[in-house]
Amino acid sequence: MKNYFSSQFKLGILGGGQLGKMMLYDTRKYDIQTYVLDPSNEAPSKVACNHFTQGSLMDYETVLNFGRKVDVLTFEIESVNIDALETLEKEGIKVYPQPSVLRNIQDKGVQKDFYKKHNIPTASYEKYAFAKAVKESPQWLDNLPFIWKSCTGGYDGKGVSVVRTASDLDTLPEVPCIAEKMIPFKNELAVIVARNVSGEVKTYPVVEMEFHPEANQVEYVICPARIDETVAQKARDIAEKVSNAFGHVGLLAVEMFQTENDEILVNEVAPRPHNSGHYSIEGSFTNQFEQHLRAILDLPLGNTDSKVASVMVNLVGDEGYTGPVKYENIEHIMGMDGVTPHIYGKKETRPFRKMGHVTIVDHNIEKARTVAEKVKGSIKVIAQ
Amino acid sequence: MKNYFSSQFKLGILGGGQLGKMMLYDTRKYDIQTYVLDPSNEAPSKVACNHFTQGSLMDYETVLNFGRKVDVLTFEIESVNIDALETLEKEGIKVYPQPSVLRNIQDKGVQKDFYKKHNIPTASYEKYAFAKAVKESPQWLDNLPFIWKSCTGGYDGKGVSVVRTASDLDTLPEVPCIAEKMIPFKNELAVIVARNVSGEVKTYPVVEMEFHPEANQVEYVICPARIDETVAQKARDIAEKVSNAFGHVGLLAVEMFQTENDEILVNEVAPRPHNSGHYSIEGSFTNQFEQHLRAILDLPLGNTDSKVASVMVNLVGDEGYTGPVKYENIEHIMGMDGVTPHIYGKKETRPFRKMGHVTIVDHNIEKARTVAEKVKGSIKVIAQ
Repeated sequence: MKNYFSSQFKLGILGGGQLGKMMLYDTRKYDIQTYVLDPSNEAPSKVACNHFTQGSLMDYETVLNFGRKVDVLTFEIESVNIDALETLEKEGIKVYPQPSVLRNIQDKGVQKDFYKKHNIPTASYEKYAFAKAVKESPQWLDNLPFIWKSCTGGYDGKGVSVVRTASDLDTLPEVPCIAEKMIPFKNELAVIVARNVSGEVKTYPVVEMEFHPEANQVEYVICPARIDETVAQKARDIAEKVSNAFGHVGLLAVEMFQTENDEILVNEVAPRPHNSGHYSIEGSFTNQFEQHLRAILDLPLGNTDSKVASVMVNLVGDEGYTGPVKYENIEHIMGMDGVTPHIYGKKETRPFRKMGHVTIVDHNIEKARTVAEKVKGSIKVIAQ
Repeated sequence: MKNYFSSQFKLGILGGGQLGKMMLYDTRKYDIQTYVLDPSNEAPSKVACNHFTQGSLMDYETVLNFGRKVDVLTFEIESVNIDALETLEKEGIKVYPQPSVLRNIQDKGVQKDFYKKHNIPTASYEKYAFAKAVKESPQWLDNLPFIWKSCTGGYDGKGVSVVRTASDLDTLPEVPCIAEKMIPFKNELAVIVARNVSGEVKTYPVVEMEFHPEANQVEYVICPARIDETVAQKARDIAEKVSNAFGHVGLLAVEMFQTENDEILVNEVAPRPHNSGHYSIEGSFTNQFEQHLRAILDLPLGNTDSKVASVMVNLVGDEGYTGPVKYENIEHIMGMDGVTPHIYGKKETRPFRKMGHVTIVDHNIEKARTVAEKVKGSIKVIAQ
């Protein structure tokens, strides 16, 4: 008998950003006692957790001491000290997703090798010790443009560049990296897979992502993706194959390309609630945060179907504004049908910083999409 | 320009029970700064508000001092000191719903007079200074059984009795009360009406309530009510008429009887989020707590339609158990389709105490209803 509810049971969460904050809606709903560790004393999660600790997620001792206080430990960000998680796991603390999953993900070169090893379709690539070393490989310079990615530290488009000329390589940081074939694709898709401790697995519907061309951040997430049912099923099957390969407990968000020939190639994964699943709060029978909790606490997984169609719009700081945030025209968008804004609670805006998101739901996906464009055209994230 | 989001704006909430707790999901979603006053240091709202004050809601000075700290003041319970609210209103604090609304509601005799004055259909009644005084009125003793209600202090079925014989009156408290005609009804219905500061009004669909025969607490809330469209429209129209009469800002939950002749009679109202609207968290485009915030902050009201059909089951303490709570079989019900439990975070259970609720949603209402019965038959709220 699992007794997590209104009890002495303690759940730890590494990271107190917006993902952690949204997860806390569901820990509160279930009355699960939470401990949060975050480097910032103004972390969005700080208010609604039971116990907040300020400290570095990359520091071995900090993570170790924090983890020893809890019964189950999870994270909302991959940049955490894996050595500490491995020690905690050995000491009997349940760490989900498992540190072994993070080992295969944190370094993008290792992640690509993992796909190759498990016959998971992905764009061809080579690993290099530093950017200029790519110049020694004519295969890349003869096939411009291609993609350059730093092996670690990438997030929200950082650490990723399109190399258009050989000299572009001179401007890139001299860190371990990969060169990757640039895929001409029709769509960027994502599937979230949930797996609980007992091995029950469920996939969410395929979503379609549109990126902001300059910021390289997701601008719209559309659920369900407006693609053929056959392609959608292929994407779900591949996502489940990736999930089986990792054997993760918790959520795994699998980002994929749909090529011009309707091939599905895995781009990258995140073992946690994901931006591409925010629509699920309003759209799905079981939202991704509740699902993550169900998975790591070994409760039965909930229905991943949608109640209605959804479009999610990221609210990022407008260019040219830095300072205390103001959401201009937010009342205006709240008058539009099916619109729910989510404000992450960051006090300061800066260009392209993720400050919130807006979900638009409707029984009709095209109508939701039209409203989403109006939302995007109205609201501005500026400084006061 | 209203700037409530991630700002210095302060919302006060009187009462920190489950209603306040659920409202805080939405204040967190909007990053609205909250102050909560509750007599209990273990109030369910304590964790997720920004500032918690322990104190009596009925004490003039306590409510006054608390209210002076905030910009807008609301409440999740009617038993608050109205004199203090009136003083605050005079001092320029926005108090929503307005103290004048509470003046017409807190005393059930005054509430019934209000309906009579505004030609709102309601069961016939008489007011009395104390229970035994009803014996002087043959109209009641000649028409047994009838309903006795104390004018103040009633909640969750407390302060209400069915009088079957004259001697029943001797066992009732000697407080101001009303005698009310017992209405043979087909259904108990409820409609939640939202009104913002600017006067925009929206009604939620009619819900159907089934009561537990002994505890006189709602056992199932079904949305939409399975009644004729004509009757549903009449109920919505009467609820809107009641709302117009009160001129409240915020939510008003209107409880009604559908008589055997399909008349609609207003039973009572609550100017706050209501148990009959909990289904809206999963079921509606805009949940009642978010709607209440939109209304009192004078933001546009959201869509009140349902995404899917819903059935809500109250989780009340099982008879014969008092002590630290345990939710037996909760994992089992979480494996059922469309089931979301809400645990209020009260540490101690006692017979019939509201400890949580479960929402069951489905595109098909009969399917949701069948699952709801399974939920009710499985989960037990007992002591550890």
